[in-house]
Amino acid sequence: MNAKYSKESLTVLTDMVLPGETNPLNNLFGGELLARMDRACSISARRHCRRIVVTASVNHVVFRKAVPVGSVVVMEAKVSRAFRSSMEVYVDVWIEDRETGERTKANEGIYTFVAVDRTGSPVKVPEIIPETDLEKERFDGALRRKQLSLVLSGRMEADNATELKALFN
Amino acid sequence: MNAKYSKESLTVLTDMVLPGETNPLNNLFGGELLARMDRACSISARRHCRRIVVTASVNHVVFRKAVPVGSVVVMEAKVSRAFRSSMEVYVDVWIEDRETGERTKANEGIYTFVAVDRTGSPVKVPEIIPETDLEKERFDGALRRKQLSLVLSGRMEADNATELKALFN
Amino acid sequence: MNAKYSKESLTVLTDMVLPGETNPLNNLFGGELLARMDRACSISARRHCRRIVVTASVNHVVFRKAVPVGSVVVMEAKVSRAFRSSMEVYVDVWIEDRETGERTKANEGIYTFVAVDRTGSPVKVPEIIPETDLEKERFDGALRRKQLSLVLSGRMEADNATELKALFN
Amino acid sequence: MNAKYSKESLTVLTDMVLPGETNPLNNLFGGELLARMDRACSISARRHCRRIVVTASVNHVVFRKAVPVGSVVVMEAKVSRAFRSSMEVYVDVWIEDRETGERTKANEGIYTFVAVDRTGSPVKVPEIIPETDLEKERFDGALRRKQLSLVLSGRMEADNATELKALFN
Amino acid sequence: MNAKYSKESLTVLTDMVLPGETNPLNNLFGGELLARMDRACSISARRHCRRIVVTASVNHVVFRKAVPVGSVVVMEAKVSRAFRSSMEVYVDVWIEDRETGERTKANEGIYTFVAVDRTGSPVKVPEIIPETDLEKERFDGALRRKQLSLVLSGRMEADNATELKALFN
Amino acid sequence: MNAKYSKESLTVLTDMVLPGETNPLNNLFGGELLARMDRACSISARRHCRRIVVTASVNHVVFRKAVPVGSVVVMEAKVSRAFRSSMEVYVDVWIEDRETGERTKANEGIYTFVAVDRTGSPVKVPEIIPETDLEKERFDGALRRKQLSLVLSGRMEADNATELKALFN
Repeated sequence: MNAKYSKESLTVLTDMVLPGETNPLNNLFGGELLARMDRACSISARRHCRRIVVTASVNHVVFRKAVPVGSVVVMEAKVSRAFRSSMEVYVDVWIEDRETGERTKANEGIYTFVAVDRTGSPVKVPEIIPETDLEKERFDGALRRKQLSLVLSGRMEADNATELKALFN
Repeated sequence: MNAKYSKESLTVLTDMVLPGETNPLNNLFGGELLARMDRACSISARRHCRRIVVTASVNHVVFRKAVPVGSVVVMEAKVSRAFRSSMEVYVDVWIEDRETGERTKANEGIYTFVAVDRTGSPVKVPEIIPETDLEKERFDGALRRKQLSLVLSGRMEADNATELKALFN
Repeated sequence: MNAKYSKESLTVLTDMVLPGETNPLNNLFGGELLARMDRACSISARRHCRRIVVTASVNHVVFRKAVPVGSVVVMEAKVSRAFRSSMEVYVDVWIEDRETGERTKANEGIYTFVAVDRTGSPVKVPEIIPETDLEKERFDGALRRKQLSLVLSGRMEADNATELKALFN
Repeated sequence: MNAKYSKESLTVLTDMVLPGETNPLNNLFGGELLARMDRACSISARRHCRRIVVTASVNHVVFRKAVPVGSVVVMEAKVSRAFRSSMEVYVDVWIEDRETGERTKANEGIYTFVAVDRTGSPVKVPEIIPETDLEKERFDGALRRKQLSLVLSGRMEADNATELKALFN
Repeated sequence: MNAKYSKESLTVLTDMVLPGETNPLNNLFGGELLARMDRACSISARRHCRRIVVTASVNHVVFRKAVPVGSVVVMEAKVSRAFRSSMEVYVDVWIEDRETGERTKANEGIYTFVAVDRTGSPVKVPEIIPETDLEKERFDGALRRKQLSLVLSGRMEADNATELKALFN
Repeated sequence: MNAKYSKESLTVLTDMVLPGETNPLNNLFGGELLARMDRACSISARRHCRRIVVTASVNHVVFRKAVPVGSVVVMEAKVSRAFRSSMEVYVDVWIEDRETGERTKANEGIYTFVAVDRTGSPVKVPEIIPETDLEKERFDGALRRKQLSLVLSGRMEADNATELKALFN
């Protein structure tokens, strides 16, 4: 199974914010945003492994900036790192200014997917080769985030989380 | 007002088909597909002119292939030609095979938008410079389609529709 | 298979515009309107042929007038002409004034459907007998539109499109 | 203020049942059906009085027959009786057989609306003139239903509900 | 089959009102409210009998107070009485004030469900034991409402509706 | 400003899974689940502080078990800890078995909200007093999660994250 480049899984979802998708402050409703991010990320994971994928967890989503009704929103999702059968996907969400065309970062999220066969059993996925600085930074962070998740859920001794320990020593 | 390249308005909307978006045959409901195409095309028109845009007409949408539930659908919209204040936008819709990653054309559509100011009055938009063969072919066709629309609605004499006449002589 | 009157396929869809169905200008979102027209037209086609019908194309939809939130919208769809296994359906969309009860034309659309059996193969449909002046005008236009569609897609020589040629000579 | 015929308020809403509108048994979800009936009835009430109307109560809705996905559903709503500022609206819901075109009654409902001015205060509405036998029967029943509602909510003495008392003596 | 307490079927549905769920006056759309009440009531009925349940009728829903966009809405549904295979469910709808936390009654509704087996045949359900004064009042009223429904639909002689007759003598 | 008990913010959202809310495997769509959790959590945060709240981040959501169409889903959200103007909310999601009434944990999530005034500026919120063992455990964990979030985003030196460091030494 050959490793693949992170960019091969790039998924772009450009869309508008209609009034039926807002919260009472007339910004994109957080739940709707989480749902769209989930759609973009799962397509990205599927493009990487070409298998059925299921959402395993949402690791982190930060809402930096509200997205007003009428905005054009651009989501770009890419697999940041693959483990045995799981993939971490990073999605960046941008708002595009109508007059200047400039993009502002609205928020970003990290989702984890697992590749499964038709019986639902996990299957092996290709590794990721990061290329850009950002891809490398996220690739490295993915291991720390995985260890953290294992430690917090009691499935790994803190002592074995070498990447994490390095942060605190 | 400088002319712009067709590719500058390229808008990509990658998304999935969920069961809540299907028709009774478990394919993407035609009306939902038309709605998504409208969203992609209007963003493309807005990117070209950087003004408020409103849908003026749907000129032609052909449904070649049903889009089954669970599909990944990719829409690519680009402005094919700009007139004084109106823009013709072409959108191609592809289904992506999960295992091979290959794309099959599912359908395509042609929408027309008008750029307006805040009072709703039409405003001038930049011209389009087509580059690829396909962009040039659609650029040329756009004039015939415009003349046809004017003739059929009685706003142009058939005799003056020179591009169209050429087809039939 | 006996021919049937156009009026036998009349389908009326009266509905309101709620805020969850609007665009950022607080008018009925174009995509939602296209979806509703598709629903009305497909019922009309089904009533004509009493078979399963699938949308083949949207030939033309003109947006003349925005439909504000809170409006009562009336759609009237009728089969304008039937060919071997396809049917052209015309839908008129009206806004009804609350105080006077008067109707204003908001837009109109032309959709084409194909009748199929359970295996998806096209089946023959009854012919249409137009009665009113408007029905006759649309019946005649349907042939020109069909030729045009065939010519533009390269499936008919312009020279054989006799109805169309007559327009330009 | 002239009385108006019941038929003047007739509102027809013909629509399909898509998978996104079903319950887990693949029939039209009861809540969605109630919502569509509310839309049809409120348009009917508004057509009668030509004022803003608000739903006051749902008096009775009986679900006789499930409506399977893919069905064509026809709703016909008419004002059955008008009181000072309130209107009782009756809606009949039919399923249309695709092959024979025959209609089967699926269910029916009775809604009450109140006409209000812009400040929300109730305003007078025209009386109803019933014509057909069914219209007359529903017109008569409306008074009994109104008395019943007043008695049950403690706003009328049972002794004064003369129409109702007649039923039980 | 042991009788069960009314409170055992208590179902709480706390939710918000988003703009996509409103009517043109920016209050919760009546149809959406009816749909949510249907969801809460059917879960309550299912909790009582632990069988598949289907909505048989909506007996009465009174809209006392509009529910503005942004509100927190609390629905509390409980089975008020069980008959052989049918259950009457009462649902109270409250709006919660953000600053004081106080609840105001917005409306209430009465739904009837039938318990069925996998073939759709009605099955016996446990009886209800009311405890509080309100539960007892609703338990008693349920019989009158059932008789009324039977009389109005012609399935019971008015003379045999003993509970109802008592009201009018 | 008096501290409040965690249980005072308890928010229960009981609901069903309809076909229009599923993914192509006929389970509750992950995005829809995230949206419902966001609704439950934000009401919980609002109940604690009685101010306007906005979602700041989704810290962790684990999908343990798919939720099949037709399920009854119970969400219970409670504020686990309050900081100056932010609140961490924990939501547990259960599936309820129809026949036995037993609940199985489907997933859980941690969301963070910020309380703001009408101008959008953060405002102080009451502290939380945890009572049960689970509340205390989550209360303690909340501080570690907050430090972690600050360290990972570069707003705190790893050396100062005393709670976290304790884990790794």
